[in-house]
Amino acid sequence: MLVAAVATGPSVSELDSAATAVHRSGELLGVISFAASGALVAARKRLDLFGMAVLAAATALGGGIVRDLLIGRTPPAAFTDLTYLTASLVTAFVLFFIAPSPRLTKGPLEIADAIGLGLFCVTGTVIADSAGLGAPTAALLGMTTAIGGGVLRDVLSGEVPLVLRPDQDLYAIPALFGAATTATLLHFDLYRTWTGLLAAAGAIGFRLLARHYRWHAPTARHARD
Amino acid sequence: MLVAAVATGPSVSELDSAATAVHRSGELLGVISFAASGALVAARKRLDLFGMAVLAAATALGGGIVRDLLIGRTPPAAFTDLTYLTASLVTAFVLFFIAPSPRLTKGPLEIADAIGLGLFCVTGTVIADSAGLGAPTAALLGMTTAIGGGVLRDVLSGEVPLVLRPDQDLYAIPALFGAATTATLLHFDLYRTWTGLLAAAGAIGFRLLARHYRWHAPTARHARD
Amino acid sequence: MLVAAVATGPSVSELDSAATAVHRSGELLGVISFAASGALVAARKRLDLFGMAVLAAATALGGGIVRDLLIGRTPPAAFTDLTYLTASLVTAFVLFFIAPSPRLTKGPLEIADAIGLGLFCVTGTVIADSAGLGAPTAALLGMTTAIGGGVLRDVLSGEVPLVLRPDQDLYAIPALFGAATTATLLHFDLYRTWTGLLAAAGAIGFRLLARHYRWHAPTARHARD
Repeated sequence: MLVAAVATGPSVSELDSAATAVHRSGELLGVISFAASGALVAARKRLDLFGMAVLAAATALGGGIVRDLLIGRTPPAAFTDLTYLTASLVTAFVLFFIAPSPRLTKGPLEIADAIGLGLFCVTGTVIADSAGLGAPTAALLGMTTAIGGGVLRDVLSGEVPLVLRPDQDLYAIPALFGAATTATLLHFDLYRTWTGLLAAAGAIGFRLLARHYRWHAPTARHARD
Repeated sequence: MLVAAVATGPSVSELDSAATAVHRSGELLGVISFAASGALVAARKRLDLFGMAVLAAATALGGGIVRDLLIGRTPPAAFTDLTYLTASLVTAFVLFFIAPSPRLTKGPLEIADAIGLGLFCVTGTVIADSAGLGAPTAALLGMTTAIGGGVLRDVLSGEVPLVLRPDQDLYAIPALFGAATTATLLHFDLYRTWTGLLAAAGAIGFRLLARHYRWHAPTARHARD
Repeated sequence: MLVAAVATGPSVSELDSAATAVHRSGELLGVISFAASGALVAARKRLDLFGMAVLAAATALGGGIVRDLLIGRTPPAAFTDLTYLTASLVTAFVLFFIAPSPRLTKGPLEIADAIGLGLFCVTGTVIADSAGLGAPTAALLGMTTAIGGGVLRDVLSGEVPLVLRPDQDLYAIPALFGAATTATLLHFDLYRTWTGLLAAAGAIGFRLLARHYRWHAPTARHARD
């Protein structure tokens, strides 16, 4: 499906087939990372095997489904190319049998979530751009793709989304940074496999640093009283 | 709307008009069942008449709206064919005036939910198939249609969706069973009114048996410690 | 974007350019009102600057995005015409620096929400009508547009939507009133700038009166025991 999008998209015709393969790998790795984050949340909530599978699939595929609906690509890739669904389910099953203790899952969950965030903000922007949208719209859709799966995971499991918790570390901003970088690269015809990977790595690093050093946005004055 | 879909769908041209009528009746009965489940949840939460109407309509129409968006049929049937909305609202009003005691609604709620689940996984798969999608995609969309309304009902009323509660009984699996059976029947050109009804009855029976005998999926080892 | 919709829509060709400007202003004022309501909810929950921005944008743009998806207009206007996003973010930033005390925000929040509700039920109906839908469908979509943003705000911030709280004041009914009035005006070719504004004012007044006098729908008998 991504291949088809690249073949028809006017603005990414410069991508050679090696870049396409890397790109598809990035999308797949993002799916696996988000599936792992969904499955780990499910394990922490003591859901059973099917609950883990449903939450892993919703987290991994949710952002891409929302993006595809927003650009009018129906049915979404997640329903036509079963690679992504299969990867989500395999991830959930593997984590089910490993059965990591809830105490040990906090760190891996956050790293998996950051990797998914960084890869999806880049691939989401590229797909939106290849659908013929302008750079700012493509960047917004890339950020939405990256954030969407995690928001769905949190809403479905009855929690306030990470992106909206008080005293959150920066989350949407690293995604917007990666998406805006990608849109800029595409706009100036500088998007290559390695520049795309750099943009993803930048977003992942940004998010992990924000997590580690607890970078916060300011809160309104009255809230600090 | 369903008539039009059948008329244009290449793979269900074998459906005669009697089958279409049965099919439409199934869709309508699914809507009424899910509307009843939404209205009963609303009554348990002591919502007023309009809250009952909104939750009944969201539960009954949500799955179909999601399915129509995913296959690119806009505006969704629920907005153009007002039969379904009317049926939801009438169901909510009738249950408002009957006003069953909350103690008495647990059983009927679960039976109504199971009937909606079974009918929607079949009709959802048929509609997705008639939109020209392949069998696995049609089955996934059928399952999504069947689960979607209940998920929306639970998220809107501030609960974790049934499909994601710890120690849940099997819920998505009966829907997937019915949808996969229907997709297989369609694929081998064996879909008839009575085989479709059998698939729906199988899914309903599977769900009710899972409820009665409390069939669970396994939970991860650490969660059993 | 609205200009384009009006230019191509067959049934609103009677709108002169002055009406279009008024209409666009109404859409923008609705966006700002809903953005303010989202930002005020975020401030009450002590979210930081970015949390306020995300919740303001989701509330202000959510209803229109849902409407655009339902009528098949992809990508939605909120992603292509950045005026609306910019207006939401500026609103959030201004409220961040004003930093009103939570005690003082209840009244303004409800007034902002009512204004957004009234304006969006009219503009949503007009946009759905200009997409060629019939009057009842256009009215339903107008009501959905008006309610959608607030539902998204409440679900994302972990609350039961206003429209579904027990002992709620009338909320969906004023929106339906405004949308049905607008659809009727359009149907009989009586929609003008001032009649549209009257319909919006009627819906806003209806909602504020319902709030002030605590108009409730009846609750089922057993709930009053």
